[in-house]
Amino acid sequence: MFSHQQLEKFVANVFGSIGCPEDQAKLAAEVLISADLRGIESHGIARLKGYLRLWEKGRINPNPQIEVVHETPSTAVVDGDGGLGLVVGPWAMERAMEKAQTAGTGWVAVRNSNHFGIAGYHAMMPLKRDMIGITMTNASPLVAPTFSAERLLGTNPIAIAIPAGKEPPFVADMATTTAANGKLEVLMRKGESAPEGWIQDKDGVMTTNAFGVKEGGALLPLGGQRESGSHKGYALGAIVDIFSGVLSGANFGPWVPPFVNFLEPHEEPVGKGLGHFFGVMRIDAFRTSDEFKDMMDTWIRRFRSSKVVDGQKKVLIPGDPEREMEEKLRQTGIKLTPGVEDELLEISRQFDIPL
Amino acid sequence: MFSHQQLEKFVANVFGSIGCPEDQAKLAAEVLISADLRGIESHGIARLKGYLRLWEKGRINPNPQIEVVHETPSTAVVDGDGGLGLVVGPWAMERAMEKAQTAGTGWVAVRNSNHFGIAGYHAMMPLKRDMIGITMTNASPLVAPTFSAERLLGTNPIAIAIPAGKEPPFVADMATTTAANGKLEVLMRKGESAPEGWIQDKDGVMTTNAFGVKEGGALLPLGGQRESGSHKGYALGAIVDIFSGVLSGANFGPWVPPFVNFLEPHEEPVGKGLGHFFGVMRIDAFRTSDEFKDMMDTWIRRFRSSKVVDGQKKVLIPGDPEREMEEKLRQTGIKLTPGVEDELLEISRQFDIPL
Repeated sequence: MFSHQQLEKFVANVFGSIGCPEDQAKLAAEVLISADLRGIESHGIARLKGYLRLWEKGRINPNPQIEVVHETPSTAVVDGDGGLGLVVGPWAMERAMEKAQTAGTGWVAVRNSNHFGIAGYHAMMPLKRDMIGITMTNASPLVAPTFSAERLLGTNPIAIAIPAGKEPPFVADMATTTAANGKLEVLMRKGESAPEGWIQDKDGVMTTNAFGVKEGGALLPLGGQRESGSHKGYALGAIVDIFSGVLSGANFGPWVPPFVNFLEPHEEPVGKGLGHFFGVMRIDAFRTSDEFKDMMDTWIRRFRSSKVVDGQKKVLIPGDPEREMEEKLRQTGIKLTPGVEDELLEISRQFDIPL
Repeated sequence: MFSHQQLEKFVANVFGSIGCPEDQAKLAAEVLISADLRGIESHGIARLKGYLRLWEKGRINPNPQIEVVHETPSTAVVDGDGGLGLVVGPWAMERAMEKAQTAGTGWVAVRNSNHFGIAGYHAMMPLKRDMIGITMTNASPLVAPTFSAERLLGTNPIAIAIPAGKEPPFVADMATTTAANGKLEVLMRKGESAPEGWIQDKDGVMTTNAFGVKEGGALLPLGGQRESGSHKGYALGAIVDIFSGVLSGANFGPWVPPFVNFLEPHEEPVGKGLGHFFGVMRIDAFRTSDEFKDMMDTWIRRFRSSKVVDGQKKVLIPGDPEREMEEKLRQTGIKLTPGVEDELLEISRQFDIPL
């Protein structure tokens, strides 16, 4: 068991030792560990080794000169200079909040970035300022569009955080696939099979073999198959890709650089790095914050108290499970899986930083 | 067979005779028939009788004073004064485009409106000005959130239209449910059963009985069941509801007024009418239109030419089927189902307007 502070400190020290300025290393650590705290282990400290491997390959710039390269009153395009997405993301979200402050809303497309942790972290940044946060990113191609046998899209998450009054905020954070890749990794570790609709094999045939993606298959868009609406999940993933990649000047679709260091980036890129898209809407650009929050409380209470189907306890509001997990883990500390702990000990020795 | 011009003229005359100003009647007819042209019959002229019944009940104002009630440089809230959504929608989308022209983007929440036809019509309006269009609306409650046995959300569609260069635009237009209600109506007419994951019965048990919704059950969010991601479809439908209803001051969730005249609106509404949400982003608020369109062509061609799974012809780009349908029906004319034609003849007699 480690407290989240211990893990954050360790990660910050490691990022510091590869050349990140101290404040950026701390921020990156906070963003990374927020995933562990919210129970999304696949995007947390388990990825530290992955970031380091990319840095070793020269694919992450530890001290980027992040800049706005184009703007209007409500928009900006940010070049992340190849920095950690964990740092570029919050920087861009700050710009979106500044735009929203003056123009009512702010929309920032980011190119030349890298994996930014959980989308939810960034989407939640504007909450304390009575603003709605929206975050998207494209990602390594692992997903086949409906009818395709090729991996052309990432799991391309969308996160949207909406403030409430007395109730906790509404926070949706979801891959646009049936299941996130992290869930598949869990099944593979346990040697279990995957539910129908999660993956197809290398020929595009739906399979319950959890190793299907590893063996050349693909994750499926939300909906699973055509009959149950996979074309909608495909469209959502495509929109995330276009907003994050095409609007910003980043790579998109099958050109997005893979997160793993053993796959090389595309030889003929169509843009720079990978892309994100951030949106912020000031509540009082529409109606008073008090009125809005009051109605959000009404919304949340009505849904949470609705009649449940047999065998279920309650209807959840998006964000409930992650918030409850975070409340718990801030108290109990975070338990790492043995494999991850071994990796961290290896990193600890390599950089001579105590875990 | 009727040409779309014949149908538009008929609808415009009918709307004119209930008191719509001539230009609004024409516009409403164009929006309504665009659904038939794009092959989405459930939202086209088949709904004319529904609009008229609401008008008879005093639930549609044929000559509304639509107005902006609040604004910032990039946002506006529009009160539709109880008008036809077919008229209020385009009016609000025009305001969003004006905002985008000066601020880079424009975001308009609408309250006190009514059913606005297909979301795709409105989302496509900005295309010719090199802008991206985004449209959402809430709708009559027919959908159960994950784990709920109650209908709390509408099919709450999202439409996003993105310009391309030499390729036709990318146009996604989708309910946030596994299947739109219109598809279910087709199955009921044919006496066929529904695929798994479309509906649950009145106790919240998944069923393939196409009459399940009619018998007190509900449509299911995209994803179908928890294991295959229905909590994501639920979150998407919820976001559409909150943006359209809570931001604007319209009704939301189970309070949204039903489209059918035999169900009364809620006795204690939480807002005015139903709500829409419109977004417009100027392409050149991010990068030059030429660069963007060039990359969109690259995106579209790569996806369209991707390797297909056995038994499929090609990977589709969102909007392909509807565009091909429209090209065909503009030539051949539109064939009405006998039931719809009978209803139109009845309307023709009632208003003394030739079909």
